[in-house]
Amino acid sequence: MAAEPKKIIIDTDPGIDDAMAIFLALRSPEVEVIGLTTIYGNVYTTLATRNALHLLEVAGRTDIPVAEGSHVTITKGTKLRIADFVHGADGLGNQNFDPPKGKPIEQSAAAFLVEQAKLHPGKVTVVALGPLTNIALAIELDPEFCKNVRQIVLLGGAFSVNGNVNPASEANIFGDPEAADIVFTCGADILAVGINVTHQVVLTDADRNKLMQSNGKFAQYLCKILEVYFSYHQEAYSMRGVYLHDPTALLAAVNPSLLTYTEGAVRVQTTGITRGLTLLYNKQKRFGEVTEWTDKPTVKVAVTVDAPTVVKLLMERLMES
Amino acid sequence: MAAEPKKIIIDTDPGIDDAMAIFLALRSPEVEVIGLTTIYGNVYTTLATRNALHLLEVAGRTDIPVAEGSHVTITKGTKLRIADFVHGADGLGNQNFDPPKGKPIEQSAAAFLVEQAKLHPGKVTVVALGPLTNIALAIELDPEFCKNVRQIVLLGGAFSVNGNVNPASEANIFGDPEAADIVFTCGADILAVGINVTHQVVLTDADRNKLMQSNGKFAQYLCKILEVYFSYHQEAYSMRGVYLHDPTALLAAVNPSLLTYTEGAVRVQTTGITRGLTLLYNKQKRFGEVTEWTDKPTVKVAVTVDAPTVVKLLMERLMES
Repeated sequence: MAAEPKKIIIDTDPGIDDAMAIFLALRSPEVEVIGLTTIYGNVYTTLATRNALHLLEVAGRTDIPVAEGSHVTITKGTKLRIADFVHGADGLGNQNFDPPKGKPIEQSAAAFLVEQAKLHPGKVTVVALGPLTNIALAIELDPEFCKNVRQIVLLGGAFSVNGNVNPASEANIFGDPEAADIVFTCGADILAVGINVTHQVVLTDADRNKLMQSNGKFAQYLCKILEVYFSYHQEAYSMRGVYLHDPTALLAAVNPSLLTYTEGAVRVQTTGITRGLTLLYNKQKRFGEVTEWTDKPTVKVAVTVDAPTVVKLLMERLMES
Repeated sequence: MAAEPKKIIIDTDPGIDDAMAIFLALRSPEVEVIGLTTIYGNVYTTLATRNALHLLEVAGRTDIPVAEGSHVTITKGTKLRIADFVHGADGLGNQNFDPPKGKPIEQSAAAFLVEQAKLHPGKVTVVALGPLTNIALAIELDPEFCKNVRQIVLLGGAFSVNGNVNPASEANIFGDPEAADIVFTCGADILAVGINVTHQVVLTDADRNKLMQSNGKFAQYLCKILEVYFSYHQEAYSMRGVYLHDPTALLAAVNPSLLTYTEGAVRVQTTGITRGLTLLYNKQKRFGEVTEWTDKPTVKVAVTVDAPTVVKLLMERLMES
């Protein structure tokens, strides 16, 4: 008897690499997508919801509910930073797709997360691909949420490397540092995939050409929206290829053994020039004094990734017709 | 004709490894110590001055002037953190040495630094082994100081690794983060040696035994004061050996090619839970927006060290009689 697929909820701000991750999830027999929740980041939340509904329609999976998430940061005080220069003004490569027919459910993202985790205790994995506001709101809504979820796999942080928003901070954490600090210290089983790892996973021009030659529905769709993402990487990093941030985090949820991890307490700096910086302390050294990390629960932080296998799995699964 | 020895001023908070660095400098023909300036850190400034005078008397080098430095941080507002638990209450291994006969000069450390740099333009290397208050005061006192000094070699920072005061911060930078940020961004030729490097340079128990068997004056003296430093490392890091922080920085000034470096802008976080964190940005990646690092001058930051040669040089030079 095959193992029961892992129930996952994808918290997402689609986004070109979000689209890849969502399609990849729908093509991964190891997981069952029981819902999408939406958040600002690559686009504003309203557009994220629209894009989430659109992507499910493209996939023919309108059975999956979409719950709209927060339109503001957890403190309500942080100006949103929207990465439309990475993903296009519509978040999906400036393709001007028709509006989706579907609508989000009535529940908020946080309420949906809380309810699903309670409904299936120890069974729901949350894959968080944007700023962590919805997850922090779920934690605030229900103190049991962190115990009820099986795992939170999050794409976020720049561990011991420069960020991608500025030298200190990675985009998802920078989007809501206060929420991120709540999530990292909540005590749930957390697996963080940062850009120190995802910058090792690149979809090349050659890979894209291969996708183009495939008849697969997802491959065909993605090739349309990928151009904007390739252009951004060319301009910002002088590379002919794109980082596979969200698909790597998604595959970490599907098969954690594709990556290796270190463990420690993670805190997020919320003030000053390094606002959004993620700092891991592995608790192996002893300090003379109690620190802000001392009594915090440990989380898993990815340190290496089997990049060839991640790219191979992505290609294979997206090229299926 | 041999090259003229490099003029150095050692800014110091002695401190057991400061004592090693000072003796090493006095035994290094490549450099000429033209003064010591004192600062709080391992001990309070008054005691640092006393210890600096004492060490020069032990060495028979009372011709070298000692200028007393600041007793407070550059903002005057930071509570001093004194590492007497590392170096003993007297800073020199609880040996209760007799008070020195000499006195510091009338000039402040900052005034002395400014004057010497002006007197020998492009010739004076400052080796800063404690918090950077005096150096920042010299920069504020004379806008030309950074142009007049040949180089500032500083022991400080924890680049891409955890600190030693807390997970974010290394002791010297934590001692005065505002001063450190002034120094890192002043435009001088700066070479920073952080604990990411000095934690690779260890004096072992076996090395200490060898020192003990030497008749060298400095070796004999150091063996007396080293016990407290060994005990601290045993307790804090479970290691039978001690980190050679200050001697490594001193040798970086003597012979920079003992280490390798990366270059970039360095800023110091001054608020929140990562106060004292040093963050290097190598300027190789492009961010969409102007950051706090963008227009800052670059400095050299040590990334590797030839640890065996550093230990060998230290041993050889300190064992000379």
